[in-house]
Amino acid sequence: MNFFDVINNRRSVRRFTDTTVPDEVVQKALDAATKAPNSSNLQPWEFYWCKSPEKKVQLAEACLFQGTARTANHLIVAVSRIDTWERNRDLIMQKMQATEPLSKDLHNYYYKIIPSLYRQDPFGIFALGRFLIFNIMGLFKPIVRRPISKKDLFEVVTKTTALACQNFMLAITAQGYGSCPMEGFDEKRIKKILKLNSNAQVVMVIGVGAPAPGGIFGPQFRVDPNLVIHQL
Amino acid sequence: MNFFDVINNRRSVRRFTDTTVPDEVVQKALDAATKAPNSSNLQPWEFYWCKSPEKKVQLAEACLFQGTARTANHLIVAVSRIDTWERNRDLIMQKMQATEPLSKDLHNYYYKIIPSLYRQDPFGIFALGRFLIFNIMGLFKPIVRRPISKKDLFEVVTKTTALACQNFMLAITAQGYGSCPMEGFDEKRIKKILKLNSNAQVVMVIGVGAPAPGGIFGPQFRVDPNLVIHQL
Repeated sequence: MNFFDVINNRRSVRRFTDTTVPDEVVQKALDAATKAPNSSNLQPWEFYWCKSPEKKVQLAEACLFQGTARTANHLIVAVSRIDTWERNRDLIMQKMQATEPLSKDLHNYYYKIIPSLYRQDPFGIFALGRFLIFNIMGLFKPIVRRPISKKDLFEVVTKTTALACQNFMLAITAQGYGSCPMEGFDEKRIKKILKLNSNAQVVMVIGVGAPAPGGIFGPQFRVDPNLVIHQL
Repeated sequence: MNFFDVINNRRSVRRFTDTTVPDEVVQKALDAATKAPNSSNLQPWEFYWCKSPEKKVQLAEACLFQGTARTANHLIVAVSRIDTWERNRDLIMQKMQATEPLSKDLHNYYYKIIPSLYRQDPFGIFALGRFLIFNIMGLFKPIVRRPISKKDLFEVVTKTTALACQNFMLAITAQGYGSCPMEGFDEKRIKKILKLNSNAQVVMVIGVGAPAPGGIFGPQFRVDPNLVIHQL
């Protein structure tokens, strides 16, 4: 499908038919998801593809039984993590070094700067250190200001995971099916179903299926572009 | 361009040539951005398209003079806001009502549920109320758990804005140009250039241009999909 047709055809689908969406369609969309740009290429995302009918009912319940969740042929939970960066960094560095030696700058970036930004401790000592350094050095020259806290770090990984989710949803549309991202869910219950700890956050739950008649609510309403697009 | 070619061709471009990217290209990508799905259709995003050469230098400086920022033909700052939801809700409701009367459920959702989730006050009274209600009711039935705090609300609007940013970047690739999202920036300085207050957050700065030779750093390295895609 032509790219702009995909952009224009992607709509949030609130009710699906019982048509089966082949696994290959979801697989291809997941592959597209992982090709999204992401913070420092640390790929802090995870996608939980629900295959168990029992867990699917539990997930739909945790999504407050909304139509999308109840009728979806596939449910995928997108999760962001603040505890996979070291593992992923090491794996990516291995792959990079297999093609050419790591430059000094790159080594410094991944083994000094990244840990100094990402490292968290239970007492917030790293966070306090960052806060002081960023705000003192920032008086004299431009400097990154965040992540400071664990919450800031979650913002980084969740933002990046959202980029991947958008690739996923567009790739579903490109293959002739529909999707809907859900944020109305009980995160505590979903984390229990997925056995996730406090280093993970549920970014969104995405329902996939063939759109049922009336499954898309009317035309797409957007505010006047002049309200949100500004020239400097 | 075919959709999956766009997904595969989109790479982060760290250096651009001095080729001019026509305004229509950026405009079309901004239009694609605003077609992204977003939390409750409240469209809490803003895109600042830098046209002033003077401000462009200031922005590049605030982006720590990285190659993407220095050589970009266009710089777009994506911003998320926690203070435009009421305005946007009213505008969207007006548009919806022009086609058919608002259902009771929809009215309830937008005028009761949304304010109860989005409303913030300087003393955190709404946040405390939400925390108590969500955690007490959540003992008995599935319920949304967040947003509680202002930081949570920023997570919602920033996540949604990231979905739009991904549409934007793909749309630039689809038109034969390149982009790079930047998160290494001095948010305080950017907010000063853009005259933004504490209800706005800088989500990312996106550079746009024609990729220079060597502007894309080697092949795309991704971790083993089995590490990030799980079946339930």
